[in-house]
Amino acid sequence: MNDRKIITVEIISGSRREFQEDVVVREAAVTLYVNEIELVTMICTPTHLRELCLGFLFAEGMITSAGEVTGFEFNENDGLAWVETLKATNIQNNFLKRQIASCCGRGRASFYFVNDLDIKPITSELRIHAAEIFSMRREAEHRSELFSSTGGAHGAALGCQGEVIAFFEDVGRHNAVDKIAGWSLLHNINASDKQLLFSGRVSSEIVLKTARLGLPVIISRSAPTDLALELAEQLNITIVGFARGQRMNIYTAGSRITI
Amino acid sequence: MNDRKIITVEIISGSRREFQEDVVVREAAVTLYVNEIELVTMICTPTHLRELCLGFLFAEGMITSAGEVTGFEFNENDGLAWVETLKATNIQNNFLKRQIASCCGRGRASFYFVNDLDIKPITSELRIHAAEIFSMRREAEHRSELFSSTGGAHGAALGCQGEVIAFFEDVGRHNAVDKIAGWSLLHNINASDKQLLFSGRVSSEIVLKTARLGLPVIISRSAPTDLALELAEQLNITIVGFARGQRMNIYTAGSRITI
Repeated sequence: MNDRKIITVEIISGSRREFQEDVVVREAAVTLYVNEIELVTMICTPTHLRELCLGFLFAEGMITSAGEVTGFEFNENDGLAWVETLKATNIQNNFLKRQIASCCGRGRASFYFVNDLDIKPITSELRIHAAEIFSMRREAEHRSELFSSTGGAHGAALGCQGEVIAFFEDVGRHNAVDKIAGWSLLHNINASDKQLLFSGRVSSEIVLKTARLGLPVIISRSAPTDLALELAEQLNITIVGFARGQRMNIYTAGSRITI
Repeated sequence: MNDRKIITVEIISGSRREFQEDVVVREAAVTLYVNEIELVTMICTPTHLRELCLGFLFAEGMITSAGEVTGFEFNENDGLAWVETLKATNIQNNFLKRQIASCCGRGRASFYFVNDLDIKPITSELRIHAAEIFSMRREAEHRSELFSSTGGAHGAALGCQGEVIAFFEDVGRHNAVDKIAGWSLLHNINASDKQLLFSGRVSSEIVLKTARLGLPVIISRSAPTDLALELAEQLNITIVGFARGQRMNIYTAGSRITI
């Protein structure tokens, strides 16, 4: 199916460690052309592209009914969609918005990475014991005070040797990670032995932000996407997901995690 | 505190209905100027703005160290931040990205709404019984098959008279809602008696998308933000949050919900 991918994951549960088959959500770039002009690249689950593209154009105020769309074609494999509209749409630069990934001007995952030339694979030989991860997750959860009060915030933390050394919350997943990056710059942090702890899902942009910062490990309480895992492999970043209680899934670069 | 706001919420639990004090996360627009040029408006929890702005510039590849920033000032009340950098940064239009809200070119929540002139308050006199909401939530959860498999997707549904009439999942919250909008256009749906069911948090952009579609009610299993509630009040949209099991919080336009 086009909305998910079967992968192999290494599960740590207490002191057991074993490989299992698992399923991750697909995250892909779909570039939308309107009347042959490139409008936007949406990072999405590439299903129901007709609904997605129409809904996007509607949300942007570029169409008000389906009848204004006279043609629709898409190429799911290459992540391309073409829409023809009755009247010429006024495409302005301010339409290039949220949906556009950091480093992606094209619709292919491979371009996503190759274009982002200033990000280099991580060479850190850090090793972390699973017990350190469990302990840092507990600490991060303990400090998720805004989330506890409101249920509406994501938390990002910087971990080091089993301790949380910085912690921020924000209504935006990306902002929480940006606050960690800003804090790291202000404190001139050597990232090579640190970890990003994160409450949110690990999408491609989170991996790229982490790589840019030089952090070798992402530990999330949520799920990763297939594109995040693909990038993490290329960038030699360890992704741990579903880190809850005494359990975690290791998706990539698992040799950094010891038990 | 600048990261949360105390509000009054109406709680329905089984057949009981009562007002209580509650706390919602703050969502605000912060406009970042770099060397006096407007760069981006970030929708965020307006705390730790120094970390946020530096982290954002770093993630964009515009700075590589804190030392490149020679000045930093901010006005939290007006949501404005000014950064001065050592060397002139090359600000291009493709920096206007994800962080920019649909309809917001300025840093103030009030502008957010007033600028968005083509969105009108909802006049629908729809009434929905709480039991219909519980039933639709169950159905939407039952259909959240991608989420069940992967833990990494958001679901959006269109509800009508206690039934789910359309359902989509996507790795992106906004995309799931856009798919509902696109489906509604394709099926020429009269929105005035329908509801948006949503697994994700209700932020300002979700309210604006809903308003544009003409839907009078948003029912989420998660939390709303303060800015979402402010917009919903102006737009006469009912927001129901934390709809789980036999329980829900009604935040705005509560007269549409009956028990």
